[in-house]
Amino acid sequence: MDLKHVDKFAKEMIFEAGRRIRQSFSYDLKIETKSGANDLVTNVDRETELFFIESIKAFDATHKVLGEEGMGEKVHSLEGPVWIIDPIDGTMNFVKQHRHFFITIGFYVDGVGKLGYIFDVMREDLFCAIAGEGAWYNGSPLRKLQPLTIDEAVIGINASWVTPNKHINHEKIIELVRTVRGTRSYGSAAMEIAFVVSGKLDAYISMRLAPWDIGGGIVIAKEVGAIATNLNGQDCDLLNSDTFIIANPYIHHKIVEDYIEEK
Amino acid sequence: MDLKHVDKFAKEMIFEAGRRIRQSFSYDLKIETKSGANDLVTNVDRETELFFIESIKAFDATHKVLGEEGMGEKVHSLEGPVWIIDPIDGTMNFVKQHRHFFITIGFYVDGVGKLGYIFDVMREDLFCAIAGEGAWYNGSPLRKLQPLTIDEAVIGINASWVTPNKHINHEKIIELVRTVRGTRSYGSAAMEIAFVVSGKLDAYISMRLAPWDIGGGIVIAKEVGAIATNLNGQDCDLLNSDTFIIANPYIHHKIVEDYIEEK
Repeated sequence: MDLKHVDKFAKEMIFEAGRRIRQSFSYDLKIETKSGANDLVTNVDRETELFFIESIKAFDATHKVLGEEGMGEKVHSLEGPVWIIDPIDGTMNFVKQHRHFFITIGFYVDGVGKLGYIFDVMREDLFCAIAGEGAWYNGSPLRKLQPLTIDEAVIGINASWVTPNKHINHEKIIELVRTVRGTRSYGSAAMEIAFVVSGKLDAYISMRLAPWDIGGGIVIAKEVGAIATNLNGQDCDLLNSDTFIIANPYIHHKIVEDYIEEK
Repeated sequence: MDLKHVDKFAKEMIFEAGRRIRQSFSYDLKIETKSGANDLVTNVDRETELFFIESIKAFDATHKVLGEEGMGEKVHSLEGPVWIIDPIDGTMNFVKQHRHFFITIGFYVDGVGKLGYIFDVMREDLFCAIAGEGAWYNGSPLRKLQPLTIDEAVIGINASWVTPNKHINHEKIIELVRTVRGTRSYGSAAMEIAFVVSGKLDAYISMRLAPWDIGGGIVIAKEVGAIATNLNGQDCDLLNSDTFIIANPYIHHKIVEDYIEEK
């Protein structure tokens, strides 16, 4: 398979989807009510996923599509070429902020990540990677992540994971929050993953993410040396929801070993 | 005093400071080491504050300047015209992310807020207000904040305030985090305040902010109906550090009454 050819197709598709989503904000003044806003995001989410499915099937009808909205066929295995798609990651940001929401897409062949994309729809900022070739931010190569220690790290973690919860021992997470330089939370897993692969954050942790949240980011991670696993340190499951950590390689092991205690 | 005249001067000064700060990133490749990055932000912070002080003194030598870096005269009272200035809010974001840092400025006369500015340096996005005249985002009027309930709110709060701390009962904050729709944390008080006045967040809470973090935002808040107080619900102290909450007027009272219990 000519990955460069698939990559060119994917980028054109993503930029076109971005244009269509931004156009939906021209209806802005009509969606004063919250229910209107929620309907809008649901519609845009579905229309965008349908656009991706139709584009991909026209490109190659043998490719499968695993999407958040489930508009495509049911995907039960990663055999063959599979696209893993989130048409809008950060729907609450879409509704309230009109920024900080992302398209994210991974392209896998027989379960192996080949292409990854995280696209800031409003900024038209693209983080992307081709397996074995490298990763880029708007055409500039992303550097390998640099060494740092845990007390120098700024990590993405939602406040709710610092409170008692059924997934992990939150006392350990409190220790982590006190050890690092700072924490951030943006309301979009794709945004936090994009920030880790570009060195703007040093780790991002979540107790529950779906394959479409992480499928694109995992491919980019590998090219810059970031490590993405579940909170047991195992490879991510791309067919089911699971815990998730992506981190600078110099602190990934320490976070998982010293600060994560699953219940 | 002709506020429109002062406003025009302030905006020109802020945009020029932004240009100078962005230029500092042209030295980017030279600051590979962290100590280099820290030196850069310290230098840019100080140079920008000096630029503000010199500009203001040239505009009117009787105006006082209260700045984070303390480069101006000591300010012990808010008598007369006083500028309250933070040249770079979000220094860690400046160093690591090259985005999400802000200039924020308030202009007060005898302790009364007259002009307020929050400026996203990299985006060149300006949130501003003239007391009694209104507030704007890049020239478009900001709307009065709309009614909502606490369970619909997205609030800015750092994960560290959800852990046991000496300021407030964190168990109540855990309840708050569980009640609201979502939480965010951006690493810049000015950014979170700008998001509240523009309805992108519904509240922002901090256990410790300085006058220069909030001086500009308080003026903008008043024009859109946001309420800014300390965590006792009292007016903010503009000469000393204090706790802080800015919120949509429909939830401010409820948060302070039901979820804040100072120690």
